[in-house]
Amino acid sequence: MDNTVRVSVVKLTEDSTTTLTQTVPDMLAVEEPLEIRLAHGDRIKNLAVTMRTPGHDADLALGFLFTEGIIVGAADIAAVAPIFVACSENRQNTILVTLKEGIVPNLGNADRNFYTTSSCGVCGKASIDAIRTVRNFVSGGPVQEIDPSFILGLPTRLAREQEVFAETGGLHAAALFDINGSLLLVREDVGRHNAVDKLIGAAMMQGRLPLADSVLLLSGRASFELVQKAAMAGIPVIAAVGAPSSLAVTLAEEFGTTLIGFLRNNRFNIYTGSHRVTMPVRENVEHENTYQG
Amino acid sequence: MDNTVRVSVVKLTEDSTTTLTQTVPDMLAVEEPLEIRLAHGDRIKNLAVTMRTPGHDADLALGFLFTEGIIVGAADIAAVAPIFVACSENRQNTILVTLKEGIVPNLGNADRNFYTTSSCGVCGKASIDAIRTVRNFVSGGPVQEIDPSFILGLPTRLAREQEVFAETGGLHAAALFDINGSLLLVREDVGRHNAVDKLIGAAMMQGRLPLADSVLLLSGRASFELVQKAAMAGIPVIAAVGAPSSLAVTLAEEFGTTLIGFLRNNRFNIYTGSHRVTMPVRENVEHENTYQG
Repeated sequence: MDNTVRVSVVKLTEDSTTTLTQTVPDMLAVEEPLEIRLAHGDRIKNLAVTMRTPGHDADLALGFLFTEGIIVGAADIAAVAPIFVACSENRQNTILVTLKEGIVPNLGNADRNFYTTSSCGVCGKASIDAIRTVRNFVSGGPVQEIDPSFILGLPTRLAREQEVFAETGGLHAAALFDINGSLLLVREDVGRHNAVDKLIGAAMMQGRLPLADSVLLLSGRASFELVQKAAMAGIPVIAAVGAPSSLAVTLAEEFGTTLIGFLRNNRFNIYTGSHRVTMPVRENVEHENTYQG
Repeated sequence: MDNTVRVSVVKLTEDSTTTLTQTVPDMLAVEEPLEIRLAHGDRIKNLAVTMRTPGHDADLALGFLFTEGIIVGAADIAAVAPIFVACSENRQNTILVTLKEGIVPNLGNADRNFYTTSSCGVCGKASIDAIRTVRNFVSGGPVQEIDPSFILGLPTRLAREQEVFAETGGLHAAALFDINGSLLLVREDVGRHNAVDKLIGAAMMQGRLPLADSVLLLSGRASFELVQKAAMAGIPVIAAVGAPSSLAVTLAEEFGTTLIGFLRNNRFNIYTGSHRVTMPVRENVEHENTYQG
């Protein structure tokens, strides 16, 4: 596996009586740039460079193109392949996606220009309006009610799969479950957006889009960007181990996504779309102690 | 404070006998786009849009321009001010940085093109070489030896300052300490790169660059990008609560930065530059149990 690398570290530990140092081996998550190039007609465009963990590079490139609205689906793709560029480091860090003849990519989105074309300046609302115009599926589809126990069990199931994180502590994970409880896909990366792009790219090439009956589990926080990517793939339920941001909640609400946060220690918070979760005992209590950690 | 927003959530808790739901108030970290515009000569360029937590926007814009190598210091700046763009949301999400007459920004770096201009393709080594060419200070300066107890105490000191994280669980923090133990600056953001840009921008405008006698504390993981930003500001010591990536370690080694990771529970790992940390009892033990969590 080239997604971890072994190094030697000085480990320092302090207890009540002594401070101890040891030289020990340690594993790091690999971070390397990936350049994504897009070929269409007789043109090749250098589209983006992202810092990623090597592995599933084709999934990453295709997921990026899809979730950014540059392509509309697997049918646009003629080929995807790494390009070997002679390099003293001998790494394969360039990937070329070739579109089918006649397919014109929506490159206006490549620079996220859509944030800035609104006549009323940039704001969360303009960002959401812009996504609406380039959406592919945008979630919202009905899904059967989900049992809370199923949701509460997801982090444990992810932990079993997420080997590199356990080794390095350095990777974000995204996992896709169907609502019958099957784990469909797991992808990891130093960048959480890359983990989601890898996952959605893989799902797209497996013909799974839109992901109308699925739950996306995120190992960390839920940002606007991650909710956007999930919405583009038609994912109706997102469960994050960490906190959501304000704009992630606003976007989820706009698009009818169920957004769950702080999923840990046998608890979670439902920020939007609570109708998709089966409610057991219910107490309507308003209290002021809001710390959810 | 407009960096948090209050929402209502359904909180679900499961114990051995019952599952309970309550509707409770919760605080979210605000995430909104910020558009950074740069005026020089008779031109205005829309440089970037970043998703950030409002607050310290001028620090963020200036730190971004500096750590990306677009400007070389505070002396380049004539003015920085938010622009009011009429908007139904009434948000101030655009900021204009005006350079002094005659100052030409290094805009070749704005698109991170420097990753892709190397004749040998993109790779970690090319990324590092590119940073070397645009460096401002690039750390490495000698700093007196630091006592491990000082380092071990940093997270507690940050926690005292980091109010929003405690409320929302949703913000990354960056803090700057001098080596005599004084806390110089703290900045928070939904994006960890933004937290570091805010901090370095503020330090620049206070005339503190290069930050030769300081320690940068990061509340999360240490990526290549964060080590790069710190190196540009001349910071010799980085201590991260989370894991570093492989390329973060390589970059720190190249530039002589001391890089500490997994700083928690009275322990830390020194990945590079251990000569800056006072070594107490030392045992050279090589063992295979490498999990540092």
